[in-house]
Amino acid sequence: MTKIPYKIYLEEKEMPKQWYNVRADMKNKPAPILNPATLKPVTKEDLKPVFCDELIDQELDDTTPYIDIPEEIHTFYKMYRPSPLVRAYYLEKALDTPAKIYYKFEGNNTSGSHKLNSAIAQAYYAKKQGLKGVTPETGAGQWGTALSMACSFFGLDCKVYMVKVSYEQKPFRREVMRTYGADVTPSPSNTTQVGRQILEEFPGTTGSLGCAISEAVEAAVTNEGYRYVLGSVLSQVLLHQSVIGLETKTALDKYGIVPDIIIGCAGGGSNLGGLISPFMGEKLRGERDYRFIAVEPASCPSLTRGKYAYDYCDTGKVCPLQKMYTLGSGFMPSANHAGGLRYHGMSSILSQLYADGLMEAVSVEQTAVFEAAQKFARVEGILPAPESSHAIRAAIDEALKCKETGEEKTIVFGLTGTGYFDMTAYQKFNDHEMTDYIPSDSDIEKSLSKLPKID
Amino acid sequence: MTKIPYKIYLEEKEMPKQWYNVRADMKNKPAPILNPATLKPVTKEDLKPVFCDELIDQELDDTTPYIDIPEEIHTFYKMYRPSPLVRAYYLEKALDTPAKIYYKFEGNNTSGSHKLNSAIAQAYYAKKQGLKGVTPETGAGQWGTALSMACSFFGLDCKVYMVKVSYEQKPFRREVMRTYGADVTPSPSNTTQVGRQILEEFPGTTGSLGCAISEAVEAAVTNEGYRYVLGSVLSQVLLHQSVIGLETKTALDKYGIVPDIIIGCAGGGSNLGGLISPFMGEKLRGERDYRFIAVEPASCPSLTRGKYAYDYCDTGKVCPLQKMYTLGSGFMPSANHAGGLRYHGMSSILSQLYADGLMEAVSVEQTAVFEAAQKFARVEGILPAPESSHAIRAAIDEALKCKETGEEKTIVFGLTGTGYFDMTAYQKFNDHEMTDYIPSDSDIEKSLSKLPKID
Repeated sequence: MTKIPYKIYLEEKEMPKQWYNVRADMKNKPAPILNPATLKPVTKEDLKPVFCDELIDQELDDTTPYIDIPEEIHTFYKMYRPSPLVRAYYLEKALDTPAKIYYKFEGNNTSGSHKLNSAIAQAYYAKKQGLKGVTPETGAGQWGTALSMACSFFGLDCKVYMVKVSYEQKPFRREVMRTYGADVTPSPSNTTQVGRQILEEFPGTTGSLGCAISEAVEAAVTNEGYRYVLGSVLSQVLLHQSVIGLETKTALDKYGIVPDIIIGCAGGGSNLGGLISPFMGEKLRGERDYRFIAVEPASCPSLTRGKYAYDYCDTGKVCPLQKMYTLGSGFMPSANHAGGLRYHGMSSILSQLYADGLMEAVSVEQTAVFEAAQKFARVEGILPAPESSHAIRAAIDEALKCKETGEEKTIVFGLTGTGYFDMTAYQKFNDHEMTDYIPSDSDIEKSLSKLPKID
Repeated sequence: MTKIPYKIYLEEKEMPKQWYNVRADMKNKPAPILNPATLKPVTKEDLKPVFCDELIDQELDDTTPYIDIPEEIHTFYKMYRPSPLVRAYYLEKALDTPAKIYYKFEGNNTSGSHKLNSAIAQAYYAKKQGLKGVTPETGAGQWGTALSMACSFFGLDCKVYMVKVSYEQKPFRREVMRTYGADVTPSPSNTTQVGRQILEEFPGTTGSLGCAISEAVEAAVTNEGYRYVLGSVLSQVLLHQSVIGLETKTALDKYGIVPDIIIGCAGGGSNLGGLISPFMGEKLRGERDYRFIAVEPASCPSLTRGKYAYDYCDTGKVCPLQKMYTLGSGFMPSANHAGGLRYHGMSSILSQLYADGLMEAVSVEQTAVFEAAQKFARVEGILPAPESSHAIRAAIDEALKCKETGEEKTIVFGLTGTGYFDMTAYQKFNDHEMTDYIPSDSDIEKSLSKLPKID
C-alpha cells in the first residue's frame, strides 16, 4: 500500500476546473430568498442594485450542478492553491487513537483563511461587469483582507466598512487591508445616512457587524458602479467554496482514502458547505454515505438551538430574508465570546440539509475549543484560528470515541485558517481568564419571538 | 518544454536527507572562533557550558561536506517542508521584465520564517543530550517562536528572554510562544545577575538584544541542564539552513532551471548562507558559476561598510569572538529602522566568502524596501516580512536591469517569512511616516574604533 505522505498536494493540473453546486442534487431545495420590502421571492431585478449580475445568477441557480471556474479565477487560485490535505499523524499519536485524521488547511495565504476563494470570484465578476469597486463590511477583518487582496489583483476599488471597535483595537488586519490598497472606514461613519443616524442616536458607539453591513449595502446602492459583497451565508459563496471539497475529494481519491466523518466549523456555513459539497452530492445521489458534522459555538448555537424559519440575514434588515436555522437577527453572542462564528443564522443550503437529517450538528464551549487549539498547535505546528478550532475540538472528540471503541474511522476536518491575528483571545486562554457562556432558553426564546411572521 | 508550475513542491522522498557544510569546499576556511576570556581559539571544552555537545562538533567541523539529518528532525521537517519554490509570474508581468524570477518561500509555518529549520535541530540535540531545556533570547520574537515550537515538540523547557520593549509593545508573538508552552521573561529581568545589574544601573530601561543575549547565556550556564541557543550567525545554523538551498536546487534541477543570480537578505546570514550553500559549493568546486548577492539594510551595512576583523558576537561580550565583517559590537542601527536585520556583524562563513570575492553585497534603504514589499504583496499575494523584502528589492532591481538590457536572466531569491507580526512597520509606511537613515562615516568609524585588538 502507498504510504500516505504528511501533506497531500495536488498538482496544478489536478485542480478543479468547475465549482460544484450541491443544490442541483438536493431533492428539497433551499426555500427561495425573499425581498425585504415585499416579502415576496426576490427577482434578479430586485438584487441588481446590490449584487453583480453574474453572482445573482449563481445565487438563484439551484439546478446546474457544475459551473465553470473562469480562467482568471483559476489562475489566481494557483497563487495559493491547491491547499494541502494533511494527515494529522502527530495528533493521532498524541491522542493514541486508532482513528485516521486528515485536515484540509486553508490558512496558507495572506488573508489567513478560506475567504479568499470567494473574494476572488466576487471581485472577478465585478470587474467583468465593468464596475468600479465593491463595498464589503468586515468585523475582525478576514473578509475585508481577502477582498482587499482580490480587488488589488483586478485593480478594483475596495471600500471596507470595519466595525469601529475592531478598527481601533485590532489595527493589524486594518493595515494589511491598507497595504493592499483598500480604503478602510470605521463603522458607524458619517459617510452614509444610516451611519449618521446611528452616530446621532448612539454617540460614542463602537459599532456592530449589523451596522457595518447596513453601511456597506448603502454605499453600494448609492455609489454609481459599486456593489456589495458578502463572505458567507449566501449560496454563491458556498458554490465558490466547493473548491475546498473538490480538492479534498481528489486528494483522498488519489490515495484511495474514504472518509467516514467530515467535520467543519459553522458560522454562516461557507467553509463547511464548501468542504462537504461534493461528498454530500454523493450522499444525495445515493452513491455513498458519510457522516457530516457542523460544529458551532455554544454561545451562538443556530443549528442546535435555533428555529428553522424565514429571517433577515442582517440586523439592519436591508438584505433579503432567507429560510434558515436562526437565533433571530437581533441575537448577539455574549461579549465574552472570543472565537468568531458569531452569525445569528446559517446558510440556507446547510439549513435545508440539516432539516432533512442529512447532516448532524454539535455545539462546543470556547474553553474546550481553545484547549483543542493549543493541543493541535503543539503537536501539528499550525496555530489555528479560533473558528477552525471548533472543528478541531469535534474531530478530537470523535477520535477519542474511536479510541474507546477501537474503531479505525477516517475523519476529515476543515482547518479554515490561522490564528495569528487572534492572539488577544489566546492570551485570555493562556492567562486562564477565558470563561464559557451558554445563552439561556429564555434569551433565545426572546430573540426568536421577534422573527418576521412569514409562511 | 515542460511548463513551469506556479509553485514547485518536491515530494517527501525528494527532501534532503543530509545537510551540506559549505566550509568543506572552501579553500580559505573561516578563521577560528576565539574564547572571549583568553582570546585563543576555542576548544570544545570551552563551549560545553554554553552549547550542546553535538552542536559544538558541527560548529567546529569545517571539513565534513555532508552531515546526516537525524530521522527525528527529518520527520519534523515533513510537517512544514518541503517549502514551495514559486515562479513569480505576476511580479515578472508587473515589472514587464524578460527576467525569470523564482522565490523560495519559507514563511508557511507558525513561526513565520526559516528560523524553525535550525530551532528544531538545536532542540533535538538538546533533547538527545538529556538536557532539561534551552534559553534563547529573542527580539521581535521570530527566533523565540521557532524555539518554542521545537521545544514543545520534544518536551523541552524553553525559557525565552525577550527584549522588554518588544514584550510590552508586541504582545502577539509573546502569546504565540506562551501557547507553545514557553516561559517568556521580559529582559532585563531580576532572574539573572547581569539583568539585576543593568536594572540597577538603568532603572526603567526597555532592554536591548545584547542584554537579552547576556541574560540567556547566564541562564544557560548557571542552570543545571540548560544550554543557550542562537538563531543566526553561527556556522551550525548555516549548516541547518542548507536545507533551504538543497531543496531549491533539487526543485530547479527537476525542471532544468539554472539560475544566474541568487539573492538573499542578510542580517546574521543564516537564510542567505543556507540558500546559497549548495550553489556556492558548485562554484567553489569550479563546476558552475553563479552571482550571489547579499542584501543588507543601509542603516546596518556590515558587509558593505564594515571591517573584516575579529569582533564580539554580542554586546555583552560573553559569546566567542569571530572574524567577520562588523560595524563593531556596540553599533546600534537608528531607532527609525523598522525592518529587522539589525545585527552588527555577519556569519563568519559568508564574511570569508565575501572577502574572497565569491559573493557580492548591496545595501538598500527602508522606504525602497517597503515599496518593494507592497508591490510584491499586491501582485504575488504574500505579505512579506520586512527582512525578506530586502531580497525582494534587490531582485526587482536586477529584473529591471534585465528589462533595460533585454537579458532573460534567471533570478532566485529567498523569501524568508511573512510580515503578519510587522504591521506596525507597514502602518508607518502606509501613513507615509517612514524615513530613511544612513549612518555617517564618522558614526561607523567611531564604533569600529572600539574593535578588540587582535591579529
